[in-house]
Amino acid sequence: MPKINAERLLADQRRLAQFGKYKTGVHRPTFSPQDMEARQWLVAQLTAAGLDAAIDGIGNILGRPRKPGPRLLIGSHSESQNHAGWLDGALGVVYGLEIARAFAEDATCADFPVEVAAFADEEGHFGNFLGSRSFIGDLAEEEIDRSRDHTEGVALRVALERAGLAGRRREQIVPADYIGYLEAHIEQGDYLDRAGLHLGIVTGIVGIWQYRIVFAGEQNHAGTTRMAARKDAGVALVKLCNAIAARFAEITGPRSVWTTGFIRLEPGAPSIVPGGAEMQFQIRDVEVAQLQRFEDALKELVAEADVAGPCRIALESAWKVSPVLMSAPFQEALTQAADHWSPGGAMAMPSAAGHDAQILARKIPAAMLFVPSINGVSHHWTEDTKEEDIALGCQVLADAAESIFRRARG
Amino acid sequence: MPKINAERLLADQRRLAQFGKYKTGVHRPTFSPQDMEARQWLVAQLTAAGLDAAIDGIGNILGRPRKPGPRLLIGSHSESQNHAGWLDGALGVVYGLEIARAFAEDATCADFPVEVAAFADEEGHFGNFLGSRSFIGDLAEEEIDRSRDHTEGVALRVALERAGLAGRRREQIVPADYIGYLEAHIEQGDYLDRAGLHLGIVTGIVGIWQYRIVFAGEQNHAGTTRMAARKDAGVALVKLCNAIAARFAEITGPRSVWTTGFIRLEPGAPSIVPGGAEMQFQIRDVEVAQLQRFEDALKELVAEADVAGPCRIALESAWKVSPVLMSAPFQEALTQAADHWSPGGAMAMPSAAGHDAQILARKIPAAMLFVPSINGVSHHWTEDTKEEDIALGCQVLADAAESIFRRARG
Repeated sequence: MPKINAERLLADQRRLAQFGKYKTGVHRPTFSPQDMEARQWLVAQLTAAGLDAAIDGIGNILGRPRKPGPRLLIGSHSESQNHAGWLDGALGVVYGLEIARAFAEDATCADFPVEVAAFADEEGHFGNFLGSRSFIGDLAEEEIDRSRDHTEGVALRVALERAGLAGRRREQIVPADYIGYLEAHIEQGDYLDRAGLHLGIVTGIVGIWQYRIVFAGEQNHAGTTRMAARKDAGVALVKLCNAIAARFAEITGPRSVWTTGFIRLEPGAPSIVPGGAEMQFQIRDVEVAQLQRFEDALKELVAEADVAGPCRIALESAWKVSPVLMSAPFQEALTQAADHWSPGGAMAMPSAAGHDAQILARKIPAAMLFVPSINGVSHHWTEDTKEEDIALGCQVLADAAESIFRRARG
Repeated sequence: MPKINAERLLADQRRLAQFGKYKTGVHRPTFSPQDMEARQWLVAQLTAAGLDAAIDGIGNILGRPRKPGPRLLIGSHSESQNHAGWLDGALGVVYGLEIARAFAEDATCADFPVEVAAFADEEGHFGNFLGSRSFIGDLAEEEIDRSRDHTEGVALRVALERAGLAGRRREQIVPADYIGYLEAHIEQGDYLDRAGLHLGIVTGIVGIWQYRIVFAGEQNHAGTTRMAARKDAGVALVKLCNAIAARFAEITGPRSVWTTGFIRLEPGAPSIVPGGAEMQFQIRDVEVAQLQRFEDALKELVAEADVAGPCRIALESAWKVSPVLMSAPFQEALTQAADHWSPGGAMAMPSAAGHDAQILARKIPAAMLFVPSINGVSHHWTEDTKEEDIALGCQVLADAAESIFRRARG
C-alpha cells in the first residue's frame, strides 16, 4: 500500500504557493511570469520524481512515467484566478506529484505507471478549459488565434510567445494508453465544512446553461419623458429578474443555482432613460431535467414579459455545458479508500463547479475527490483547507489509485 | 411691433443644421470642429445683424448691441448631444438672431438693445452648464482644469486649445446691465404634441436630485455557493429597484419622474456571484416638497433593505439641483403674446429638463418658451418641430421681448 509523505506534500504545496504569493493566497494568472515559474518548478519536481516532464505548446505539463502498460493520469491545474486561493487546482497537481513519488517508493506499486498532469488555463483567463481541451483534441488553432486574456486583453498567441511556448507541439491523448483520470480539488462550496466532513466523492459535474437576455426599449430624456410614456429597458430587466427569482424558487432542485452575473444599461447615463439593457444569466444543475425545467420557465417568463411590453425582450442561449457523470468504479474505489482512512468522514456529492475532469471524461473514465473549503470560500485569497484534510485527501486518492490499477490489471 | 421673417428664420435654422449634419439631425458635440464652424458662422450672422459678436474663453458667443440702456439677453446653446436633433438649443439661438434683426428693422423697437447668446456645453459633454455658469461667475479655473469630455476622455483644456479658445477672456455678467433673459427651446417631452398645442410657457425648471446607491455583498463562485448562503449584491439591487417602483408610484406627483440610468455589478462575470453593485438613481420634480417626499421614501427603503440583509446598502446623495421659478412678469408677457398669435394654443408647464435659463435666473429675471417636439422625441436625430410652430414661437418671443422692453422703460 503506497504511503504518502504528508510533510513532503505540505512543504511542496507551500513552496508552490510562493509563486505569485498574494496575502495568504496567490495571484498566478495563466502564462504570467509567476505562473511560468511555477510550471518550471513543477517540471523539476516531476523530473526528480523519475518522470519525463515537459510543458507543451498550450502550457500543459505532462509528467510521463517510463514504465510500460496503461497509465493512470492524476492531476488538475496550477494557475489561479486573480488574487485567489493557494490550493484550488494546485492541490490536485501536487497530489499527483506526491502519489507518483509514493508509488515509486512502494515495492508493491513501483511498476504502476502514474502520469501527472497540470492542465493550463482551467480558470479560463483566455478561454474555456484550454489545456484539457487541447489534450483531448478539442482546441482548434483558430480558437487560439482569436483568444484574449479577459483581464488585460492580451492575445493568447502573444502570451504563448512571451511564455516561451510558441511553436511547441501540443500533446494529445491516446485514450487506449490510459486507465483513466483522477482529479482532486478543494470543494469550493461549504457542504463538507458545514457537515463537519473531510472528503467529497464527486458523483458528477453540473451542467451549466448560460443565457444572454436583451431588452429593447426607447432611449429618452430622463426629465421630459413621462413615466407612462417610457419604454425603459432597465425597468423591464429589473422586473424580469424579480419574476425569475420568484418562479425559480418554486421549481428549484435541491442543489440548483442560478446567477445574474452581469447587467448593463444602454447608454448608462444618469439623465437618460435606458433604451437598451442586457443581462447574462446562468443556471447550473447536475440533472438535465432540472436544467430543462428552468429553461422552460425562463422562456415562458421572457415571452410573457415580451408580450406585455412596453419593451421587447429576447432570450439567447449563449452556451451549454452538459452535466457529466463520474466513473462509477472509480467512485467506488474512492469511497472504499475514504471509508478506510476516515470512516463516516466522506459524502457523495455533485460538483457545482466545472473541472478538467469533465473534459477528460469525454475520452477516458474520470473521477474526482474533494477536500473541504473552510467556510466554503473559493476564488479568493482567504481560501483555505486544514492541513490534516490536505494530507488525508492525498492518501485516499493514492489508495484509490492503487485499487484502480489492481482492478485494471485483473 | 417687430415682425420676424419666417423664411429667413427657417433658412438660418436649416443652414445651422448643416454643421455636423447626421441623418435628419446633427452630431455637433461641444468644441468639435463642426461645433466651432457653427459658432464661427453664428458670429458672422450676428455681426451682419449689427451686433459686436465674439466667442469667449469658454466658447460662449455673445452678440452685443451697440445701443445704450439695459439689455435683454436672448439665446440658448448651439452644440448638440451626440447624434441628436437639429433644433434643440440651436432653435433658441437662431430666435435670438432673428429677433435682433426684427427689432433693428422695426422703427418703434430699433433702439431696444437685444443681446444674443449661444452658451457653450449646455449639453454637458464636459461638465454641467459650463458656458452659462462661466457667464454668471460660477465656474472656477480648477473645474476647467479637471473636466474631461465624457465620450472620449479629452481634457477640457486640450479641447479649448484645439478649438483656438485657450487664453481668451471669459465674459462675465454685470446684472445691472440686463433687464433679463429669454430662452426658447423645444419641449423635449410630448405634453404639447399630445394636447395639440403650439406653445409652452415655462413656469419653472425642475429640481434634480441624483443619488448613488452602493450594495456590498460577498463575491463567490456561481456554482458552488448555495442560493441560501449567497450575499448577492445584484439580487439586492434588483429587489430595491422593485421596491422603489412600487413605493414611488404611490407617492408620485402629477409630473414627477424617477430614473435608474446606470447599473453595474462587480465583478460582472457570468460565473461569479456579484460581491458588489452600484446604481445611479435620479428624481425630478418642480416641487421641493415632492422631491423631499421621494427622498424620505428612498431613505426608508434603503434602510429597511440594509437591515433585512444579507447585503449592506448605502445611499449617497450625488448632487442636487434646486427647482427654479421663472419670472412672473416675463411669463405674463409670453402668455399675452401667445394669446395674440395663437389663441388657446399655449399652456403653462414646468420644464422637466435643465436649461441655461435656470443658471441665468440666479442673477437676472429669466423665462422660457417651448415649442412642441413631434412625438416628444428629444436627444435623437429624429427630433423635429413643425415649421409653422418654429415661426410662431419666434414671433411670440419677439412680441414678449418688446413688451418686456416697454415695461422696463415704463
